[in-house]
Amino acid sequence: MATLKTPLCDLLGIDLPIIQAPMAGGPTTPELVAAVSNAGALGSFGFAYMQPEAMQRDVELARVRTSAPLGVNLFLSKDADAIDAAAQQPALDAVRPYFAELGLPAPQPVKPPYSPDRRSQLAAIDAIKPAVFTFHLGDTGPAPVAHLRASGIKVGGSATCVAEARHLEALGVDFIIAQGGEAGGHRGTYLRDPYQAMTGTLALVRLIVKAVRVPVVAAGGIMDGAGIAAVLALGAQGAQLGTAFVPCTESGASAVHKQAILTAQEDDTVITEKFSGKPARGIVNRYVREMQDSPTLAFPAQNALTGALRSAAAKAGKSEFVSLWAGQAAPLARALSAAELVATLRDETLEALDRLRSLG
Amino acid sequence: MATLKTPLCDLLGIDLPIIQAPMAGGPTTPELVAAVSNAGALGSFGFAYMQPEAMQRDVELARVRTSAPLGVNLFLSKDADAIDAAAQQPALDAVRPYFAELGLPAPQPVKPPYSPDRRSQLAAIDAIKPAVFTFHLGDTGPAPVAHLRASGIKVGGSATCVAEARHLEALGVDFIIAQGGEAGGHRGTYLRDPYQAMTGTLALVRLIVKAVRVPVVAAGGIMDGAGIAAVLALGAQGAQLGTAFVPCTESGASAVHKQAILTAQEDDTVITEKFSGKPARGIVNRYVREMQDSPTLAFPAQNALTGALRSAAAKAGKSEFVSLWAGQAAPLARALSAAELVATLRDETLEALDRLRSLG
Repeated sequence: MATLKTPLCDLLGIDLPIIQAPMAGGPTTPELVAAVSNAGALGSFGFAYMQPEAMQRDVELARVRTSAPLGVNLFLSKDADAIDAAAQQPALDAVRPYFAELGLPAPQPVKPPYSPDRRSQLAAIDAIKPAVFTFHLGDTGPAPVAHLRASGIKVGGSATCVAEARHLEALGVDFIIAQGGEAGGHRGTYLRDPYQAMTGTLALVRLIVKAVRVPVVAAGGIMDGAGIAAVLALGAQGAQLGTAFVPCTESGASAVHKQAILTAQEDDTVITEKFSGKPARGIVNRYVREMQDSPTLAFPAQNALTGALRSAAAKAGKSEFVSLWAGQAAPLARALSAAELVATLRDETLEALDRLRSLG
Repeated sequence: MATLKTPLCDLLGIDLPIIQAPMAGGPTTPELVAAVSNAGALGSFGFAYMQPEAMQRDVELARVRTSAPLGVNLFLSKDADAIDAAAQQPALDAVRPYFAELGLPAPQPVKPPYSPDRRSQLAAIDAIKPAVFTFHLGDTGPAPVAHLRASGIKVGGSATCVAEARHLEALGVDFIIAQGGEAGGHRGTYLRDPYQAMTGTLALVRLIVKAVRVPVVAAGGIMDGAGIAAVLALGAQGAQLGTAFVPCTESGASAVHKQAILTAQEDDTVITEKFSGKPARGIVNRYVREMQDSPTLAFPAQNALTGALRSAAAKAGKSEFVSLWAGQAAPLARALSAAELVATLRDETLEALDRLRSLG
């Protein structure tokens, strides 16, 4: 029988070398994650902005729907220092007109903590004991990795350059996600200038596969089975797809976000820090264009500041003020259920491998 | 017997789906091009800056060494308008210290024509009748394409975005080279902002394969057989490799250029307009760093202006002032003869396809 199992699949306990990317901020509902895992890929939660109680609740809701392995992801960046109210004024002034345009109260200085406490989030992971824990922005020491691995969790980290891949290997991770320049959402860069660590997926995956001994998962620009077959050819043992899952029926992404991806051109995306304070790839809109030279707060304070704007805009169907995270291959996105998408990806990958059989 | 032939190979009359990229400015000697073609791939001349007589001479020298198909390439960008001497002063002032440091006479205003006449170059292609003609920066009408194709030449053009690929297909080309963001040397962008048309190879190739009906050749970040197998999985019918061939024994690239590629890190490259006036990817050096905010002339006047500097620096072994064109996967480069490299690429591609057989 046709199989796509790689050694990484055995390590993570999944049938297909496909990971649904853990997208923070909405898309990864329990319904999406459970449907992906039930279909034989790895469903994953993006818990970067979520409090421990909400993390536990979402995982419980998913576990009602599936007994298959699940992944969870955190951002492990250092928390921003407190920014006093006066120093926030330029950033507040920059977004004030948009708040007014949406009929929102004027933005107020944001107060720390700007995001959930990392230590409490890690403690929640410990309690949840997901099959797989991955982290982004990994400027953490080896202790959390060793601790979680000791309890049987498989741990993976994101690298955007060879130096980060080597660093993650030294931290003791089970596998490395090579995040190429095409990828949507936040750049995982933590050792370099994120604007310089923009190597394309094809080049980056091959370089990292040659540089480390742990399994590599490719991310960035993969939207169909041909893309999955391509990264397997590069020596990756799995493919992580985010943008492809955003328009899924079960995804919690806003309707404007789904619609923007389903109608995007490949050169519509840009890297912007204007929503969260850290560079992330999304579809360019009025907010990104107009804010280009405007002051912003450091991550994650800027994310806290723009939260009300983004959610009110999404509710009002105004894509101009929503963070439309998307990778460069967004035009290949399809509106399917998660189960249909995973089955399609599997069939397409097998077809692509079949096509290659006529060669060599 | 194992074969890697795609329909494009039959169209171009080659055994392997591999094109040695036509790199202008030195690397593509008759010895390199002939050795590549003799090994079953397509050797190609980068004639962008060459006068018709020199083009003809180089092709004759290659044809003494091989009867296999050869490719030639031109830049078809519009010629820059004449720039008067006074308007050139800021750009001259910017490079003056480097000329002095190398003991060169002070730079003088450059006079048009800044590069060989495009019409005469096209007439030379007509006379040479190469098996394959490819062009870069293709803002040309359909007439030259139709004329050359009518004489039996297979014509290909470079696209850096889907819009350019569709435009090239409408021009009537036989095939399209999808130049991803990883690629070294000049960006072929001609319909868009080159800094926005930076989609990674994995995403771009798949998007263009789905958008056009003509065969697609992938370029950018491909350095070994795993990379070739990957782009074949994406539906490309061939791979064009430039950086991989720069360090070849027969390559005319300077010793400092070869050495820079053989010792590069993957995040050492940047896009710069400072050497030629058009954006191109190369390994960052002192000139690129220091010139970052300095004025430059339009392409190709800036190329004419910096010519003496680049060649004196290369001769003196000073990589600081040489255009070190290279793609993002440069660290995978190997110092081999062209025949050894092509044979290695073939063997590695077959191995990669074999590895994929254990799946699916």
